[in-house]
Amino acid sequence: MEQVQISKNELNDRVVAILLKAGISDFQAKSVADVIVAGEADGCKSHGIYRLDGILRTVKAGKVNPVAAAHVMSSEASAIIKVDAGGGFANPAFELGLPHLVERAAKFGIAALVINDCTHFSALWWEVEALTREGLACLAMCPSYATVAPTGGSKPLLGTNPFAFGWPRSQTFPYVFDFATSVAARGEIELHRRAGKPLPEGWAIDADGNPTTEPEAALAGAMLPFGGHKGSSIGTMIELLGGIMIGDLTSSEALDYLGTTTLLPLHGELVIAMSPQAFAAGRAGDPFARAEVLFDAIAGSGARLPSQRRFTARQKSDAEGITLTASETEHLERLLDKGLDAVA
Amino acid sequence: MEQVQISKNELNDRVVAILLKAGISDFQAKSVADVIVAGEADGCKSHGIYRLDGILRTVKAGKVNPVAAAHVMSSEASAIIKVDAGGGFANPAFELGLPHLVERAAKFGIAALVINDCTHFSALWWEVEALTREGLACLAMCPSYATVAPTGGSKPLLGTNPFAFGWPRSQTFPYVFDFATSVAARGEIELHRRAGKPLPEGWAIDADGNPTTEPEAALAGAMLPFGGHKGSSIGTMIELLGGIMIGDLTSSEALDYLGTTTLLPLHGELVIAMSPQAFAAGRAGDPFARAEVLFDAIAGSGARLPSQRRFTARQKSDAEGITLTASETEHLERLLDKGLDAVA
Repeated sequence: MEQVQISKNELNDRVVAILLKAGISDFQAKSVADVIVAGEADGCKSHGIYRLDGILRTVKAGKVNPVAAAHVMSSEASAIIKVDAGGGFANPAFELGLPHLVERAAKFGIAALVINDCTHFSALWWEVEALTREGLACLAMCPSYATVAPTGGSKPLLGTNPFAFGWPRSQTFPYVFDFATSVAARGEIELHRRAGKPLPEGWAIDADGNPTTEPEAALAGAMLPFGGHKGSSIGTMIELLGGIMIGDLTSSEALDYLGTTTLLPLHGELVIAMSPQAFAAGRAGDPFARAEVLFDAIAGSGARLPSQRRFTARQKSDAEGITLTASETEHLERLLDKGLDAVA
Repeated sequence: MEQVQISKNELNDRVVAILLKAGISDFQAKSVADVIVAGEADGCKSHGIYRLDGILRTVKAGKVNPVAAAHVMSSEASAIIKVDAGGGFANPAFELGLPHLVERAAKFGIAALVINDCTHFSALWWEVEALTREGLACLAMCPSYATVAPTGGSKPLLGTNPFAFGWPRSQTFPYVFDFATSVAARGEIELHRRAGKPLPEGWAIDADGNPTTEPEAALAGAMLPFGGHKGSSIGTMIELLGGIMIGDLTSSEALDYLGTTTLLPLHGELVIAMSPQAFAAGRAGDPFARAEVLFDAIAGSGARLPSQRRFTARQKSDAEGITLTASETEHLERLLDKGLDAVA
């Protein structure tokens, strides 16, 4: 398959141009493009250029406000920063809220960023990494679409609800995890369907609530949470904190609102930032140095730290640029040429 | 087997008397007894009277300060409340910090309680429930002893690191989960060993890092995290936040310090409290009412909410008292009679 090398900046320019052509405002376009290019650079295709079609479809369907201006609402005395995305994409809202969150976490030791009314396209690892660059530990979570059944239940009531965490490391990439609270991603079930392969056991139930290994039946039924009742509980917690507590939609409500999982969901997001310096103040030992001892022990015992595959890909693309297939570059050209007419 | 009914108050008096006789101060004894009696009332034997032996052994070994007075340290401007347990039990430290945490969460929207230098005997569900009674959502976590290998690793570097969450419900018991981030508790492996039964696959590895179903080999090796690399990541996060960030011992350090898992560990604990009222302010819908819709849907789909077994047991013991076996009551009498001489 023919391949093309392209620099990060060049890809960024092309993605921004595609988003602008689709009628997305300058600030939103740049902010969304950053995550897409970071996804490609990290070999994380699930957040790469393939997502452009979904973004354009959501614009075309009128389910995102492509020119919304997000705004920050917060009283100085609160440790909660709220950003109203105004129905625009999550990314510019996060970008706007970030410096405020950093300032509040430094001031109070712990602080939270709430994003409301956003069309959610982002990678939580991108966001927790941004906070680790500020020396903060960070938790992030959000609902998605109701496609996961709570353990023991027969109906999809939870989203794949990602849960992410970051811890700063000064000499190397941060400690970062970001995972779905379902056993598998919906895309993986779709891939099995296309390949005509049965699913591994434990991934899904059919519409009657019975275990199934048939991709079609799984898509009509529900996925299962990771780790049995424990993962199910974490998925439920994310509905409560990242949906209900912040006054935004649950995964069920997001799906009801849009009626399809092929558009990007509208909901909110919760980010909690903590200052290890503030938490460790007055105690013996530097928390960042002590964390390195733990990471060394983990790596030394043969285990991998999370996100290492992404970081290896990032090093490669930093050195060599991003590799796209000829059909990917053609697709980018088509999106730039046709704009919203390129998508159904 | 002969059984005895005993009221909560009566059991509480007996447990307090045993702890006082062992040289534990009045405030610490009352606070520890509350959790033990709550464990018995909830049919949660892992935090019930059987734990008295371990508590007395830890006192006898000089590894807890039974007369320590915990004290609260915090500046008014911070959202972090720190309680120094002074080497005493975690429970009185939590009790001291609780009203401050509640006040700060109301003031700032989100706040954290750090307990340092505590001999950890508590049930995190007990603590998150206390916060739900104040109308707060709450996360709690702490390290334990290093007995769990990170996924892919060959050495026990993580604890069974419990992770708990609570959400207030005004008309019924709160939504609460509290689970070990290992597949199984160490006690369950011990029970299999005594019964001469092999372990289920996926619970443990031997000292060489190979999967094993032999309890002896597992006890000499390591337990595995729940949910593969995802649970492993959460266990690691708990070492970072609930150990290193708060300037307290990791599970490895706690085990090194005490040299045995038969005494209670010395480390810290992190509790994060959030005010749903503050987070939802200005948004449509009451978060508590909306959460009930989610809980109804989960229960209606055939799934159980977590902690229901405990709550059912609590209703029964509230109505009928706590049921102990004759040998349990004899054991209590022996502990009261002999004090620290009753334990090795």
